Amino acid sequence: MAKSQKVKRIGILTGGGDCPGLNAVIRGVTKPALDHGLKVFGILDGFEGLVEGRAQELYNRDVSGILSKGGTILGSSNKGDPFHWPEEVEGKIKIVDRSKEALKNYEAWNLDAIIAIGGDGTMHISKKLSDMGMNIVGVPKTIDNDLEATDLTFGHDSAVFVVSEALDRLHTTASSHHRVMVIEVMGRYAGWIALNGGLAGGADVILIPEIPFEWKAVYDHVLMRNMMGKRFSIVCVAEGAKPKDGTLITKGKDIKRTDPLQLGGIGEYVAKKIAENTGLETRYTVLGHLQRGGSPTPFDRILSTKFGVSAINLVIKKQFCKMVALKGNEIKSVRIQDAISHQKLVKPNDQAVLAAMAVGVNFGVEKF
Amino acid sequence: MAKSQKVKRIGILTGGGDCPGLNAVIRGVTKPALDHGLKVFGILDGFEGLVEGRAQELYNRDVSGILSKGGTILGSSNKGDPFHWPEEVEGKIKIVDRSKEALKNYEAWNLDAIIAIGGDGTMHISKKLSDMGMNIVGVPKTIDNDLEATDLTFGHDSAVFVVSEALDRLHTTASSHHRVMVIEVMGRYAGWIALNGGLAGGADVILIPEIPFEWKAVYDHVLMRNMMGKRFSIVCVAEGAKPKDGTLITKGKDIKRTDPLQLGGIGEYVAKKIAENTGLETRYTVLGHLQRGGSPTPFDRILSTKFGVSAINLVIKKQFCKMVALKGNEIKSVRIQDAISHQKLVKPNDQAVLAAMAVGVNFGVEKF
Amino acid sequence: MAKSQKVKRIGILTGGGDCPGLNAVIRGVTKPALDHGLKVFGILDGFEGLVEGRAQELYNRDVSGILSKGGTILGSSNKGDPFHWPEEVEGKIKIVDRSKEALKNYEAWNLDAIIAIGGDGTMHISKKLSDMGMNIVGVPKTIDNDLEATDLTFGHDSAVFVVSEALDRLHTTASSHHRVMVIEVMGRYAGWIALNGGLAGGADVILIPEIPFEWKAVYDHVLMRNMMGKRFSIVCVAEGAKPKDGTLITKGKDIKRTDPLQLGGIGEYVAKKIAENTGLETRYTVLGHLQRGGSPTPFDRILSTKFGVSAINLVIKKQFCKMVALKGNEIKSVRIQDAISHQKLVKPNDQAVLAAMAVGVNFGVEKF
Amino acid sequence: MAKSQKVKRIGILTGGGDCPGLNAVIRGVTKPALDHGLKVFGILDGFEGLVEGRAQELYNRDVSGILSKGGTILGSSNKGDPFHWPEEVEGKIKIVDRSKEALKNYEAWNLDAIIAIGGDGTMHISKKLSDMGMNIVGVPKTIDNDLEATDLTFGHDSAVFVVSEALDRLHTTASSHHRVMVIEVMGRYAGWIALNGGLAGGADVILIPEIPFEWKAVYDHVLMRNMMGKRFSIVCVAEGAKPKDGTLITKGKDIKRTDPLQLGGIGEYVAKKIAENTGLETRYTVLGHLQRGGSPTPFDRILSTKFGVSAINLVIKKQFCKMVALKGNEIKSVRIQDAISHQKLVKPNDQAVLAAMAVGVNFGVEKF
Repeated sequence: MAKSQKVKRIGILTGGGDCPGLNAVIRGVTKPALDHGLKVFGILDGFEGLVEGRAQELYNRDVSGILSKGGTILGSSNKGDPFHWPEEVEGKIKIVDRSKEALKNYEAWNLDAIIAIGGDGTMHISKKLSDMGMNIVGVPKTIDNDLEATDLTFGHDSAVFVVSEALDRLHTTASSHHRVMVIEVMGRYAGWIALNGGLAGGADVILIPEIPFEWKAVYDHVLMRNMMGKRFSIVCVAEGAKPKDGTLITKGKDIKRTDPLQLGGIGEYVAKKIAENTGLETRYTVLGHLQRGGSPTPFDRILSTKFGVSAINLVIKKQFCKMVALKGNEIKSVRIQDAISHQKLVKPNDQAVLAAMAVGVNFGVEKF
Repeated sequence: MAKSQKVKRIGILTGGGDCPGLNAVIRGVTKPALDHGLKVFGILDGFEGLVEGRAQELYNRDVSGILSKGGTILGSSNKGDPFHWPEEVEGKIKIVDRSKEALKNYEAWNLDAIIAIGGDGTMHISKKLSDMGMNIVGVPKTIDNDLEATDLTFGHDSAVFVVSEALDRLHTTASSHHRVMVIEVMGRYAGWIALNGGLAGGADVILIPEIPFEWKAVYDHVLMRNMMGKRFSIVCVAEGAKPKDGTLITKGKDIKRTDPLQLGGIGEYVAKKIAENTGLETRYTVLGHLQRGGSPTPFDRILSTKFGVSAINLVIKKQFCKMVALKGNEIKSVRIQDAISHQKLVKPNDQAVLAAMAVGVNFGVEKF
Repeated sequence: MAKSQKVKRIGILTGGGDCPGLNAVIRGVTKPALDHGLKVFGILDGFEGLVEGRAQELYNRDVSGILSKGGTILGSSNKGDPFHWPEEVEGKIKIVDRSKEALKNYEAWNLDAIIAIGGDGTMHISKKLSDMGMNIVGVPKTIDNDLEATDLTFGHDSAVFVVSEALDRLHTTASSHHRVMVIEVMGRYAGWIALNGGLAGGADVILIPEIPFEWKAVYDHVLMRNMMGKRFSIVCVAEGAKPKDGTLITKGKDIKRTDPLQLGGIGEYVAKKIAENTGLETRYTVLGHLQRGGSPTPFDRILSTKFGVSAINLVIKKQFCKMVALKGNEIKSVRIQDAISHQKLVKPNDQAVLAAMAVGVNFGVEKF
Repeated sequence: MAKSQKVKRIGILTGGGDCPGLNAVIRGVTKPALDHGLKVFGILDGFEGLVEGRAQELYNRDVSGILSKGGTILGSSNKGDPFHWPEEVEGKIKIVDRSKEALKNYEAWNLDAIIAIGGDGTMHISKKLSDMGMNIVGVPKTIDNDLEATDLTFGHDSAVFVVSEALDRLHTTASSHHRVMVIEVMGRYAGWIALNGGLAGGADVILIPEIPFEWKAVYDHVLMRNMMGKRFSIVCVAEGAKPKDGTLITKGKDIKRTDPLQLGGIGEYVAKKIAENTGLETRYTVLGHLQRGGSPTPFDRILSTKFGVSAINLVIKKQFCKMVALKGNEIKSVRIQDAISHQKLVKPNDQAVLAAMAVGVNFGVEKF
């Protein structure tokens, strides 16, 4: 578009995994956009819809009442990277580049900009599509909260809420039966959900990917509690947590198991090891997709709305290739290429870790 | 005790698995008992405490504020059957009869009666202890709701609440991603939790032990929904559900797996089979002990309180070897021996099953 | 319609106040009706839509996903009694009979039957429209649970849930600050919400219309608790509760206040009187419409679904002028004229009242 | 205490109104303090206990399991300002200075420091007691979130949660009945609860003390929505909101009403004015103390725990007359005298206000 032209038609899409607050962002973008006289097109199923040419115009009635709804009215898709598109050719999956079709649809729809809501993957694709000439503004989305560029991401508070509520429930049944309860939560590389959820839910042991744990430290802590008359323990394990001893090696999404005990996920594994090595009755629960579903917490609804409104403001000001971000109490913007360069992992001396240790949480280590 | 004597000292214990509402029963027994001038002794960890002589006197302050708390302040134990007591002798577990010690403690504590809160197992033991001369009144407890003698048991509504809430969450994430979500819930022999939870949470397929399912019916239903544009399905599976084809044989607690796919529980198995046979993206969640924990629902708090009050009334009237039961809107009493003779299973023509089918739920069968 | 004819077209409407579960009934009717090949017309805003000729055809997509939603997708109206229709004539409201227009629309739409979901008022109107020749099946709806003809009505459990949750919240703040907290809940003539909500939420005093209370008994109970070291009390008051002493006279919806203290509702009044007469810090809260809103509890979703399915079954069997009802664990049907003759009030010797008294609740009376 | 001496004995107290998270702070202070070998004394009922010499030693078991509990195990008191102590002398209330007794008890208990958890009032008193020689560290507490010195205070997120949940409930009943629902929430001087709660709950009008409102703007917005087919509106009113026209003048806690309609609080007043001036059916609800009670949200549990741990760290480092504060993602400390000098009010151009306006919320003004 020419520099003097005003933005008139925008697209919006949601990429990657589900996350409470997506609909609140869509509403936060669409309502003010329509107020400004823009036309808004909802691109269906993330970048998949952009490649395949599937979109529908959004009106006020489409975004009315969706603030409190989980999921995304636009649908999402895990497969849709236009630059690495899996295509079945003669019974085999071949990876092809369909980014030109994405661009063609962008032009055919006469779009002046796209607001892309998504995580790391979505931002990488957005950067590349920007380089091809599309005007893109990003909205960060990850329940894992592992983006350095923003203090917090929406969806994380809702995931922590689900974990904390589950721990509250497990506490009562653990204390009645003198049990160890293991709960496996999300977090393949970053342990924020386990850390914050465990801190909020009063976990006794928290195991996260950033702090490889020693089995003995876990057993000792549980047994020590037992000896002190607290006949139950709650262990909160991130799915990417791993023991120091090499019985579990994760590389990318592949998990190599060297211990015959380990059949299911890490939660089941930890439960079995504790039962075997302490003699205490142990049970485990895998929260799974419960952490991604349901109505967003008020905190996430507010953050999502602010993100959406800020994104459309950037579009109107033609500040493209930017991503909205929370800094303190303010929404700011950062360059997309800066946003995607750093993953925010839990540091062993993070205040949340130290606070957890101060109230008695063990991280599967003797000292650090 | 002589017929003319008044009841003066009672014991109370909670046996078996955890169940929301146990504390409400304990409060419902203890408050009026103390008002009547009785002494109340809380026997710790179920029958284990009766055998081992562990109990503590309960005062008003002990039961104040526990109405809304999950778990049991008295503790429970799965092992404690006095007639089949596992004892380690020279490194081996031997089953011995320690019922005489139970009786000795009952007499040593000078108890006039015991109120035993528990399930089928607890009622069987109570009947046998009655035959030895103890005065026992039973309060039925099972989140499974599988007791013929009472319209409903406390804890079931709370378990159904947890399942329904989980299904609400899974709905949003399933519909955003066009997925099949499988959720495994409690119910080894009776499918009430899966049936009621699935009905309340809007499940599309419900698989229960009472209705052996056909794989093809499940695949067809899921595919049919897909073809009709509903690109998600929720499958609610009781842990004791089993396919007709013999790939899974359960006898008692042993599960024989004849299918190499089946590693974890039935939920994981069903998810894998659906993914393999329909080509749809499928995820599973195992709710586990979340269903037993947490604050009881108002419904369960009311039922538990009424059960507790009715039980102490039976004790005061010396109506022993009875169990309290709900019939319509009234609490009645039945003989313990009658209560334990029938398990209440889901009948294929139960109104709840027919209602579920009427709103489109498939039970893994083509017709019945 | 002729006896041999099959039912082909039905209408459905929701009358009276809001009630969690209405949408679940609409779904429970519509899904199986469409399955049977019927056409279903949603009549808008209760009988108002029948008189004014406003309705829309319902399809599967209209009732998909509404199970968990509060409110009614059909809208409701308080004014719409066709036989007593308020009409503005020359600036004045005149009451006219517009039942013939209702009948005309029924015939114009070619309806074979109407399913009317509503309370006492709706059932009275339904009876009269039946007498004019319409085929009507009723579904009882009252959060007050005051219908003799059915063990329970849907919506009541959800209202009790809201009250119980509020009491849980008030407990913590009352105990921190040594306060009396008064909460006013719904129930103009029947005290079931206050009774069940108060019992579930651990209220110390419950005041209901059926048991006129003595001020002194209330003050004494609160002061007695204070003396025993329990420095807080929770008082749960039904909006229709009234003192014996005649300071408040309610006749129909008119409230005559003879006490200058009484400005707002009964909750505010009770709070002021307690503060004045005991010297204790007292606060009050009026729950109001929170009790009617929000997602129905699982219990209500199940009951509503069963009611809806049973209602359409009655229609298909041409069992008209009937109302569905819960008896024990079964849904049965009763004649509408029988259903409306008796209001179910709390009896002073109801088991719930006696259980509440047994756990220490005071009903504002010394003895009864 | 001499500079070289280590801190050995500390007191902890909670002042002012109730606030979810108080117990989490107490736990966050006590657990690490005991770990460090300190003795911890819980001073009862805020400064009242300090003046009257009431305290009890806290052990690990006292703070075990209180993380998720609302209220404060130490009790609180609104009256307890040692410098302005209301005392009954010959039937009249006289204000006396009892700060010397506070100091005497501090010394008698041999305390090295006090951690005072409270709001503005508590910090003012803490400053003055500091000047008398006590070592005090403050923890800010206000559900109103109106402290300039910290990005956020604990309890606010929980209050917003309650408001948002209530608005979700009111939405369903408002939309079924075509009503205006007015909800009055806390906030006498600062409108953060109404703003954030209204934003999260999807309010259509938000009225706060910082933006005096025009009646006409409110009526117009509600009528405009009605004309556009949205036949319901939700109005979220802070208790300190006031109209520009002078029908309500608040000075301190006194409210002067010049309008005969206004009987109860502002919520009732606004509801009556809207009903009268728009002809629309209108209802109101006053949330009251529900906003202060109940289990803290996970967000508040985490913030409270961090605040507690940071406070005890300041004490151990002898950094007295400081208050802990949140800045971005970090807990820092500020001087108490700096903390109390500025109240944080909503600015009309705050991002949250602008975001709310962008999604269609009206603040009772035509333009600003």
